[in-house]
Amino acid sequence: MITELLPIKYPIIQAGMVWVSGGKLAAASAQAGILGVIGAGSMKPELLRTHIQKAKTLTTHPERLAVNVPLLYKLTQEQLQVSLEEGIKIFITSAGSPKKYTSWLKEQGCIVIHVISTPELAFKCQEAGCDAVIAEGFEAGGHNGRDEITTLCLIPQVLKRVNIPVIAAGGIATGEAWLSMMGLGAAGVQIGTRFVATRESSAHDNFKKLITESTFNSTMLMMKKLVPVRLYKNKFYDEVAKLEEVCASSEKLEEHLGHGRARAGMLEGDLDEGELEIGQIAGLIEDIPTVAELVADLVTDYNKAFKNLKSF
Amino acid sequence: MITELLPIKYPIIQAGMVWVSGGKLAAASAQAGILGVIGAGSMKPELLRTHIQKAKTLTTHPERLAVNVPLLYKLTQEQLQVSLEEGIKIFITSAGSPKKYTSWLKEQGCIVIHVISTPELAFKCQEAGCDAVIAEGFEAGGHNGRDEITTLCLIPQVLKRVNIPVIAAGGIATGEAWLSMMGLGAAGVQIGTRFVATRESSAHDNFKKLITESTFNSTMLMMKKLVPVRLYKNKFYDEVAKLEEVCASSEKLEEHLGHGRARAGMLEGDLDEGELEIGQIAGLIEDIPTVAELVADLVTDYNKAFKNLKSF
Repeated sequence: MITELLPIKYPIIQAGMVWVSGGKLAAASAQAGILGVIGAGSMKPELLRTHIQKAKTLTTHPERLAVNVPLLYKLTQEQLQVSLEEGIKIFITSAGSPKKYTSWLKEQGCIVIHVISTPELAFKCQEAGCDAVIAEGFEAGGHNGRDEITTLCLIPQVLKRVNIPVIAAGGIATGEAWLSMMGLGAAGVQIGTRFVATRESSAHDNFKKLITESTFNSTMLMMKKLVPVRLYKNKFYDEVAKLEEVCASSEKLEEHLGHGRARAGMLEGDLDEGELEIGQIAGLIEDIPTVAELVADLVTDYNKAFKNLKSF
Repeated sequence: MITELLPIKYPIIQAGMVWVSGGKLAAASAQAGILGVIGAGSMKPELLRTHIQKAKTLTTHPERLAVNVPLLYKLTQEQLQVSLEEGIKIFITSAGSPKKYTSWLKEQGCIVIHVISTPELAFKCQEAGCDAVIAEGFEAGGHNGRDEITTLCLIPQVLKRVNIPVIAAGGIATGEAWLSMMGLGAAGVQIGTRFVATRESSAHDNFKKLITESTFNSTMLMMKKLVPVRLYKNKFYDEVAKLEEVCASSEKLEEHLGHGRARAGMLEGDLDEGELEIGQIAGLIEDIPTVAELVADLVTDYNKAFKNLKSF
């Protein structure tokens, strides 16, 4: 279980999501006994520093703070450097080769966990020296693997391929789903979408409210010609869907996507023109609790479901 | 748990799959303590009768035999009639309105379970008087829902919508996955793909062997313009993929599909020209056990995984 690897009470990682996971959310998560992750993907290095510093003032458990760094920006090295300077010892890396920074981070005494969507990439992470992998399924929000492997199919195939701990992600929003993943053999879970709709997330209130109103078919995996991304079905989505229906080129799709759409949608609350990245499990979410309330509910519901299980 | 609804020892349903689930497979399943389902979709009424009669001679538990009837063929009524004449009391219906036959079957003293892929259709099944629903996710083999809801996301949303038992299907091939679904709140599981690769299934040996050699990315959901279907990536798949890449019309796709492709692939073993319907979890399967061995393994692995779970 990842409670042995990380200084946390429950084997839960609050996902480091762009425009959503700032210092406030990460600190509330750390305080509630889980790993609080700042999403550096949408932050310039000095803004990242501000978020880490803020988080440290908001929790008595700074050792439970981590940073998620996508390894594809020009500023990656600087983001890592700033995080190290601010005392971060746990890194979640994604969207790039695990070979690039893992050894170096391990030499600085850090724990490195890489996000993957196939058993093959999990194996590469193990070879690169990662401490664990987060295996994220097709139902997850945001950017997604090309092979469309669901969480339920991905976890056992990754477990067969590696010996390091496997953390399940994608489709998990309740204590029952957390239990479900532990039963499947996961060492813990990463929860994203459910944390977008919490008081402490940086998502715009419009977006949080939209999540509570969403239903079973409110999202779809799109943009497969570029990088697949799970989107909420808003006006922007409708336009993408129309382009894809007529097999528009990647250039056309890129042009339509433009710049700043995710920021506009998720941070600034433009629900029409914005790109709203969210997981399929949004359909289950009905409220906007505090992180402390949410984690308490997760634990209560896990234990209740656990008591109902029987052996044969 | 569906062991209260059905006369079975373990809450497991062996899926009634076209070209795969004949009398031999259903009888072996019934004998092993689970629901043995004959897949009527690929059978004319008199052939169905032969399979039911054969199954009854092969098991001491004929009360554990059921028939899966897709409600979209001209012969549906006859298939149901033949099954009733042969003493079948448990029906799994799919691919059509649950309103059509449920009341009539209930009047004959039968148990009716309908296969669904959305919470909305589950609710319609409850309204129609169904005893339970099988909620089948995006990762399942064969024909599939348009909303691409994965098993992990589908089960909790269906549980919120209905009061009747919810049986999980799609992506389940091990005792751990069975436990996982019980933790999620399912009343039982339906297992398909794993039973294709058993000694007693009617699938061609070529197809069974191919399943044991498949990997994490061996299948993909295709033909979304017709009825979405999860296919093994063989030569036929490659041709479909090429057509879809250029946005071929439904007519073109239908023409390419032609007739008898599924039979050719799954029953007759033509791995190039045949349409091979199989679930994403095929990548995990490595052997071709007997049904008795498989069920024993499922129970052992379930109990082992159950013992490893802890409360918080």
